[in-house]
Amino acid sequence: MQNFVFQNPTKLVFGKGMISKLAELIPANSRLMITFGGGSVKRNGVYDEVKAALAGREWIEFWGIEPNPAIETLRKAIALGREHKVDFLLAVGGGSVIDGTKLISAGLRYEGDAWDLVLKGCYTDTVPLGTVLTLPATGSEMNSGAVISRHETKEKYAFYSNYPRFSILDPEKTFTLPEHQIACGLSDTFVHVMEQYLTTAGQSRVMDRWAEGLLQTVIEIAPKIRENKHDYDLMADFMLSATMGLNGFVAMGVTQDWATHMIGHELTALHGLTHGATLAIVFNGTIRVLREQKRAKLLQYGARVWGIVEGTEEERIDRTIEATEAFFRSLGLSTRLSEEGIGEETIAEIERRFNEAGVAYGEAHNVTGSMARRILEACR
Amino acid sequence: MQNFVFQNPTKLVFGKGMISKLAELIPANSRLMITFGGGSVKRNGVYDEVKAALAGREWIEFWGIEPNPAIETLRKAIALGREHKVDFLLAVGGGSVIDGTKLISAGLRYEGDAWDLVLKGCYTDTVPLGTVLTLPATGSEMNSGAVISRHETKEKYAFYSNYPRFSILDPEKTFTLPEHQIACGLSDTFVHVMEQYLTTAGQSRVMDRWAEGLLQTVIEIAPKIRENKHDYDLMADFMLSATMGLNGFVAMGVTQDWATHMIGHELTALHGLTHGATLAIVFNGTIRVLREQKRAKLLQYGARVWGIVEGTEEERIDRTIEATEAFFRSLGLSTRLSEEGIGEETIAEIERRFNEAGVAYGEAHNVTGSMARRILEACR
Repeated sequence: MQNFVFQNPTKLVFGKGMISKLAELIPANSRLMITFGGGSVKRNGVYDEVKAALAGREWIEFWGIEPNPAIETLRKAIALGREHKVDFLLAVGGGSVIDGTKLISAGLRYEGDAWDLVLKGCYTDTVPLGTVLTLPATGSEMNSGAVISRHETKEKYAFYSNYPRFSILDPEKTFTLPEHQIACGLSDTFVHVMEQYLTTAGQSRVMDRWAEGLLQTVIEIAPKIRENKHDYDLMADFMLSATMGLNGFVAMGVTQDWATHMIGHELTALHGLTHGATLAIVFNGTIRVLREQKRAKLLQYGARVWGIVEGTEEERIDRTIEATEAFFRSLGLSTRLSEEGIGEETIAEIERRFNEAGVAYGEAHNVTGSMARRILEACR
Repeated sequence: MQNFVFQNPTKLVFGKGMISKLAELIPANSRLMITFGGGSVKRNGVYDEVKAALAGREWIEFWGIEPNPAIETLRKAIALGREHKVDFLLAVGGGSVIDGTKLISAGLRYEGDAWDLVLKGCYTDTVPLGTVLTLPATGSEMNSGAVISRHETKEKYAFYSNYPRFSILDPEKTFTLPEHQIACGLSDTFVHVMEQYLTTAGQSRVMDRWAEGLLQTVIEIAPKIRENKHDYDLMADFMLSATMGLNGFVAMGVTQDWATHMIGHELTALHGLTHGATLAIVFNGTIRVLREQKRAKLLQYGARVWGIVEGTEEERIDRTIEATEAFFRSLGLSTRLSEEGIGEETIAEIERRFNEAGVAYGEAHNVTGSMARRILEACR
């Protein structure tokens, strides 16, 4: 096991009716700004519950943080927050609203342009932030990360600041999610865990078991959710898996990968594909191309998660890779670039960007431009 | 899944050489008191590493917090700390030293006798506390609980205050532990997980998988540790399992039991048996007597943790109970009261105490005095 430091201070407030706790969680005299995405929270009752919970308080609202939150939008929110001397933020929505609000929370304490902070990568002087999560997927509700886009240059980068003070997760609020968003959330959760698991074997039995437990859970609940997304316990396990998949709980003392994510971010930046949908494609390329490097862990994953224990090692790995692709397909997601009309032009552009940035992602630091090309060609 | 609130702010600083981080973790101008148990930290090098890490600082030391820390000892530590206006505590040792120091941290901020706080059960106005853990077992390094004894009355009660600010866990520091302490630590970890797992089935797939993952890990590493307790990765997984077994990470949204612990505490109070050793006995009684109530979970536990999937339900449960008792025996621990010379007198006293207190422990609130008698008779 590698040395590590772990600390996650977010208070998780989980369950039916928990939005009513907001008044206890936000200091009474806060100059509060609440941030939102589109209007879905008005249709599913979340907005009304938030208003009821904060009855008697004053706040300002910022609407319109889009999927893959853009610096162009967030600058406006920062300007509004500054004007009103905002000292507490409440993000109400999915991972994009929370991610965007993390940058707002930093931007409010930074005099220059907030894009500087994204390029810097980390900024921890922030306004306190709480969240009400409506879409299980990114884990942003219980981690310090965010991903911010810049439309004018089609760039998309990770940014780190502080953990939310609290996050309210009410599984009932997921009942109205569209099927595609649920599928992308399941895919995102699955690949988050994989980025922390499918690397070097033998680092930590505990972390392996916990990662496998999340994968097994997602695989078990996915078809059941397709049948009934109004089953509270199913959606509760989905929400809990998504949060636990990227809050550091399965990352203690183990190496991490994240190459699939970095390639996926480029597909979103260039084509606007939903994050989880990009992962469902790219991950199939990653495990095919890095099959040798990940051999021991692929065998373990196949045996423990899919029960694939018969046959030669090569046969077992083949079947494990097939089972993984079939899982993504069962979610109703594409697993090949061609299904999304993406081809050589995009592959060449991603290779160029990786080369230009001089990056080498993955646990072996070998996912450079040319390796990214190989991965993309393997899921073409 | 039940509604829950989860927050665990402890910073875990894990790995080889991490004691050297102490100076970063304790504010420079602290009026520090360091607390210890017996002299083992002088023999295993921990004391010297702590001194080296804090070179140039001043502190006072309190030695002699015993296993099952006693109010009689802790009062002396509180008096010493008060005299020196201590405002930061560092506990160096196992769970007993940490538990005792939690009461010291509360007692320093309370004017009356600290036993009042134990009877009150919870007190959160405390002096900040950090820990250097030397014995994986209780999980006290990353939770808010403690168990405090009173020798003059042979009482032993749980007490809750604040989480340690930080805990340093260096697996190398466990290499010199005596075999019996390791066995008791493994037993303690195993039963901690069971108290949060072997209750009602179907509450959370994620929590079930994570609890099973810890049980599988403990079962896998126990015989290997008996062969070689100097294997870093083995002891690292042991330490991580013990901490993760009682820090709230496997308790989200699920019912809990704790009847075995409450009965075990009485055995310690009355006979001075090590905590983990009491659990290795009592748990066998609990699962025999509450077999019907825990039926669904016993079948799941047998199948997933022990691979017991053949035969009728009754046969599978029988084999699961046998496998569990055999596991404790493989640690070199007694699984029957008679092996420790404990008989009717103690059973009657525990029944009397439970009846007098009017308690009803366990997930079904049915472990009263008479049920405690049945459990103890089943492991007699």
